[in-house]
Amino acid sequence: MPYINIQITREGATREQKAELIKGATDLVVRVLGKDPQATFVVIEEVDTDSWGVGGETVTALRQRQRAAPST
Amino acid sequence: MPYINIQITREGATREQKAELIKGATDLVVRVLGKDPQATFVVIEEVDTDSWGVGGETVTALRQRQRAAPST
Amino acid sequence: MPYINIQITREGATREQKAELIKGATDLVVRVLGKDPQATFVVIEEVDTDSWGVGGETVTALRQRQRAAPST
Amino acid sequence: MPYINIQITREGATREQKAELIKGATDLVVRVLGKDPQATFVVIEEVDTDSWGVGGETVTALRQRQRAAPST
Amino acid sequence: MPYINIQITREGATREQKAELIKGATDLVVRVLGKDPQATFVVIEEVDTDSWGVGGETVTALRQRQRAAPST
Amino acid sequence: MPYINIQITREGATREQKAELIKGATDLVVRVLGKDPQATFVVIEEVDTDSWGVGGETVTALRQRQRAAPST
Repeated sequence: MPYINIQITREGATREQKAELIKGATDLVVRVLGKDPQATFVVIEEVDTDSWGVGGETVTALRQRQRAAPST
Repeated sequence: MPYINIQITREGATREQKAELIKGATDLVVRVLGKDPQATFVVIEEVDTDSWGVGGETVTALRQRQRAAPST
Repeated sequence: MPYINIQITREGATREQKAELIKGATDLVVRVLGKDPQATFVVIEEVDTDSWGVGGETVTALRQRQRAAPST
Repeated sequence: MPYINIQITREGATREQKAELIKGATDLVVRVLGKDPQATFVVIEEVDTDSWGVGGETVTALRQRQRAAPST
Repeated sequence: MPYINIQITREGATREQKAELIKGATDLVVRVLGKDPQATFVVIEEVDTDSWGVGGETVTALRQRQRAAPST
Repeated sequence: MPYINIQITREGATREQKAELIKGATDLVVRVLGKDPQATFVVIEEVDTDSWGVGGETVTALRQRQRAAPST
């Protein structure tokens, strides 16, 4: 009875993509561990880019730098 | 000093129901483990039905099938 | 289909107490929200007192002070 | 930069199975969301069957009933 | 490659304060454990005061009592 | 009343380092958000390198490659 929590930044994931994540994550534990899909929960959490940090800065700041220097 | 995280689908839980969950979960660890209620946190997270999966499909899809076949 | 995560310090909770926590937390969401118990997961995590902090210190340090000053 | 947490009961998952879960979960967010695999974390947590509950009972109790009634 | 999750009540934390939390938490694991900041994620989750409990009551109720008795 | 969860790979963090993480994380939310340290929990979770993945592989595999090619 796995519980799978997927945290991503809120940057436009569609309903269809979320359904695909849920299908794919469930299939994964069924295939690798032989788990019962009916007893497998997948919970997706979307987090604002202001609230997600990497390298000590927010993803908001990171995205701004990436847009300013697109070729890097 | 327990920390209790309750994740549910966002399907209309009221403010009163949340207060009841918080009271009940706190009472539980006080009664069973003798914990101090003042040092017990309960955090409720509501998750969109598009973002919660069971059996490889979203709860949104599950609810639609349940409404289509109410007698099952 | 709730998911309930209970984090406590590892200070001797017995198998019976854990079973009681699982029963009580499940009953709570069934009673308050009308959830299906078969679709309710409870996960208990025990954390070493060296790895749990409150008030800026470890629970290990807190327990030592509490034992040194039992009347407080 | 996704973070994926997979919680399963501790029932003998091998090192190879864990590596497969990590590979599969990473591939999933790369394929569905176009995420960078180097910025994708997967954390697997194994939980004792005494500490995981479903249907109001521990998985330990559930497994004992399942072994007692193998044909069900 | 640490993952740090900070949960707070939603009571007006600004974008600047969140950036400061991300910077501070990243610096902390770099300084204490020698971790690579680029491989350090910080995720801040804000929770409604109706959904956070302490002492068996919601933070909403707690704040109302605190406002009613400001000198305590 | 913040709750801070710090997940790291189990690679020898000492009791002193954990105490420092707890002190530092608590000070951070006190300083930035004006939170009460007594109502601040910090929970450190150490995860086996076999159970932590980045870039689609386990940290165990990553460390082996890093040791094989120390100058990279």
